[in-house]
Amino acid sequence: MKLDTQTHDETVNTNAEVAIIGAGPGGYETAIRLHQKGIKVILFEKEKLGGECLNWGCIPTKAMVKSADLFSEIKHSSEFGIDVENISLDFTRFMERKSKVVEKLTTGLDYIFNKRKIPVFYEQVKKISKRNEYQGRSRDKEHDNQKSIFIIETKSGKMYQADFVVVATGSKPIELPGLPFDSHNILSSRDILEITELPKHLAIIGGGTIGCEFASIFSSLGVKVEIIELLPSLLSNEDKDISRKLTTAFKKKGIRVHVKTMVEGAQLENGKVILKLVSTPQKQNDVNNEDTKVKELITDKVLVSTGRKACCDIDFSGLRLVKNDGKIEIDDFMETAEKKIYAIGDVTGKLMLAHTASKQGLLVADYIEQEIKGNNNMMAASKHHQKPLLYYNIPRCTYTDPEVASIGITDHTAVKNGKDVLVGRFSYLANGKALAIGSKDGIIKVVADKNNRKVIGMHIVGKEATELIVMGSIIINTGLTIDDLHHVIYAHPTISEILMEAIEDLEDLAIHKI
Amino acid sequence: MKLDTQTHDETVNTNAEVAIIGAGPGGYETAIRLHQKGIKVILFEKEKLGGECLNWGCIPTKAMVKSADLFSEIKHSSEFGIDVENISLDFTRFMERKSKVVEKLTTGLDYIFNKRKIPVFYEQVKKISKRNEYQGRSRDKEHDNQKSIFIIETKSGKMYQADFVVVATGSKPIELPGLPFDSHNILSSRDILEITELPKHLAIIGGGTIGCEFASIFSSLGVKVEIIELLPSLLSNEDKDISRKLTTAFKKKGIRVHVKTMVEGAQLENGKVILKLVSTPQKQNDVNNEDTKVKELITDKVLVSTGRKACCDIDFSGLRLVKNDGKIEIDDFMETAEKKIYAIGDVTGKLMLAHTASKQGLLVADYIEQEIKGNNNMMAASKHHQKPLLYYNIPRCTYTDPEVASIGITDHTAVKNGKDVLVGRFSYLANGKALAIGSKDGIIKVVADKNNRKVIGMHIVGKEATELIVMGSIIINTGLTIDDLHHVIYAHPTISEILMEAIEDLEDLAIHKI
Repeated sequence: MKLDTQTHDETVNTNAEVAIIGAGPGGYETAIRLHQKGIKVILFEKEKLGGECLNWGCIPTKAMVKSADLFSEIKHSSEFGIDVENISLDFTRFMERKSKVVEKLTTGLDYIFNKRKIPVFYEQVKKISKRNEYQGRSRDKEHDNQKSIFIIETKSGKMYQADFVVVATGSKPIELPGLPFDSHNILSSRDILEITELPKHLAIIGGGTIGCEFASIFSSLGVKVEIIELLPSLLSNEDKDISRKLTTAFKKKGIRVHVKTMVEGAQLENGKVILKLVSTPQKQNDVNNEDTKVKELITDKVLVSTGRKACCDIDFSGLRLVKNDGKIEIDDFMETAEKKIYAIGDVTGKLMLAHTASKQGLLVADYIEQEIKGNNNMMAASKHHQKPLLYYNIPRCTYTDPEVASIGITDHTAVKNGKDVLVGRFSYLANGKALAIGSKDGIIKVVADKNNRKVIGMHIVGKEATELIVMGSIIINTGLTIDDLHHVIYAHPTISEILMEAIEDLEDLAIHKI
Repeated sequence: MKLDTQTHDETVNTNAEVAIIGAGPGGYETAIRLHQKGIKVILFEKEKLGGECLNWGCIPTKAMVKSADLFSEIKHSSEFGIDVENISLDFTRFMERKSKVVEKLTTGLDYIFNKRKIPVFYEQVKKISKRNEYQGRSRDKEHDNQKSIFIIETKSGKMYQADFVVVATGSKPIELPGLPFDSHNILSSRDILEITELPKHLAIIGGGTIGCEFASIFSSLGVKVEIIELLPSLLSNEDKDISRKLTTAFKKKGIRVHVKTMVEGAQLENGKVILKLVSTPQKQNDVNNEDTKVKELITDKVLVSTGRKACCDIDFSGLRLVKNDGKIEIDDFMETAEKKIYAIGDVTGKLMLAHTASKQGLLVADYIEQEIKGNNNMMAASKHHQKPLLYYNIPRCTYTDPEVASIGITDHTAVKNGKDVLVGRFSYLANGKALAIGSKDGIIKVVADKNNRKVIGMHIVGKEATELIVMGSIIINTGLTIDDLHHVIYAHPTISEILMEAIEDLEDLAIHKI
């Protein structure tokens, strides 16, 4: 299967066993893993190594979250016995720090790629096509002796070839009709990382993860923040109790939350944006809607964070690969309808998270290794005996204050699907460590299947939720039951004891609950 | 087995199925769990509900750690783009906050005991003895028809009776010969919680968990701290790499560390303490000893934290229960040589941690339930089929800056025991979240058994180590293998990804390591 003995087309500059298109966390990690396995890989990236996540997403925002949290904590330091005067934020240094963190990580990544000698081509891929090469003597028996090779053509006209392709081209922010990004007043999640001064007022359209994170950051920094969300709650995919707790915390921080509200129009006037808000028809059980009467909202900046859509401009004509609404369709094992072309990450339109892409990619690296190193048919079969990735068992994190994290399903969904469930919950308020560190707002909810006693969901709002959710990931993804967990000993005093009591509460055995 | 039908002795005020002596985390949690199971329980406590841990140990110190960490973070806030002026610590409010946290938790505990109507007798138990009661008609067949009842006599002369006893009387700090606690200059870990002003200089004798925690707290508050440790390293039970990293961090904070050093004498002069330090004989591979030449150390306060010893003043004469060096001897199932008398927590001299006591106690509650509700012999047998508590698989936490936490065994111990091991390690320095929050000092080490591929040790120094160690507890105590862990998906960006890469590093597959 090695390419070394093949005849080369004149137009092909470099060949490889695997070509990966897109160097976000999905693409670059897959490249490294394949390289670790001794497989020859090339990587294409039109912008920067690390992709959206490292350069304009997860990482810079987490640096901002840290500064914002600290700023907010200092404002309340007197309750810890600490007095300070004249607290001020230097927004330029605040933003510079975020860029330095990104720089440090991209430098590290460059170092790894250089050291491993994995070729990275900073080029946009224009077209991928297939050429069948006939090998061996019996030319009439096409299926036995042909080998297909993928030709990768870049915008600059260069050609490369590979036996396998992994498409990891990511996603881009959705623009609202009538409200195009102008990188000045109407901002995407990428634009907002480039602003040079703190706005007085910020309107955020879309109360999902990205919207809520920026709301939390800017509110902590003293900006007046308003969130406009079409659905009846913030983080609408989360457990209702969790979402409600976040909304309460947000309101306490001074964030105005407009749910069931849509933006019908916008106009620019003297550097301000005037948004026309319209309430969507009211239903029963109407909660969390602070102000549905607002018709006009005047703001300095608008962040549009209504979601992201799969993004891939590659011409696949002539290949079997299927796109649906921009998303590349994959099977349970990330393979497209075109054999040996895999797709991973946001472009597949599954749970759009960096670690979804990474996990898909590392699995794909395993599958490709099996195909290259083993007997194709046998290995392909064995791959399909493996457990497919269950996207609902991937942890989801929102780095707000308080943090939100979850994995698996909610009791609501479980019951809707006819499952008999146990639900345990425990509050931060009754946990020694949480009180000691002054973080008493939060809950952990655990959902277990009453029949097989497996844990099937964990939902957290509160301090360190995004770190604690790994417990859920270990428990759920290894299939542990309530009884297995009786053997676990939790250190005292820790926030993780809240999980212990939530699990005990599944059977009404939480010690500190009555 | 219920006591209701028994004849009562005149001197007995109250009877119960189970009497628990000591209301620390071990005692009080056992009481609640037994009550949850519908078993009649009484609890004796000579001081306060919550015991050492809640009132003078884990909890107040964690409140102090939080304030100290925040104080230290504010001093470095400019690197996050935040400017403050005139940072000062109000030591009175600092200490008051700690007391308020304790008060909130003890109030909560009182509420639970009141609500559950579990009798708590604030009395010191003086003597426990046994009386055999004969039941049924065949009086000559003693063994078949006799029932033994324990008589609990308090210092005030009151008498109680119970079918089972759980001794959970805890431990007390070890005093050094020639250096008795005076609660003014020579302090125990309890005394130091009562000081009313910040010393300028603090000497800490004993570089174990308690000594290191106080060193970290007071150093963060600006106190000049020196640690005197007899052994060659701080936290001498921890993995050598971890201990070394902590020592380095401590020195960077300005803490002076004298290892292999003992205190030979002390004298008080003008309110100062003069300690005479002597270096113990030097061995090969001498590291970490900053200054073995020091002969005299002048300090404001001395904290003696050289360990704790089991503590139980109850007269057990006439019972089979065995004490060894003050510790009550127990079998694998916490039962003493006197059947139906159990002992848990520090008094048993096992790993002296609150959650050791709690876990022992909750297991004892299960065993007692089995004995009461089932056929004694059958159930007693079934108990002994259960997995005994493995004390080395209990998580150990040290709340220093940076935090230290571990579970299971070190590679060093494993190899010494003839085990073939894999060792994985990954640094905080290469983790996105750690860099984003400015906590790049730390490592996670994972040890796995090469033969059965089970994880057998996890050792962490760094931010949130004490929360992250729960991952190790889940993994090790449920017996997960490296292969099981391949199914786990870690959220990005989180510090828990360091564990992921440490596990991948067991097989040289860490993505961000080269």
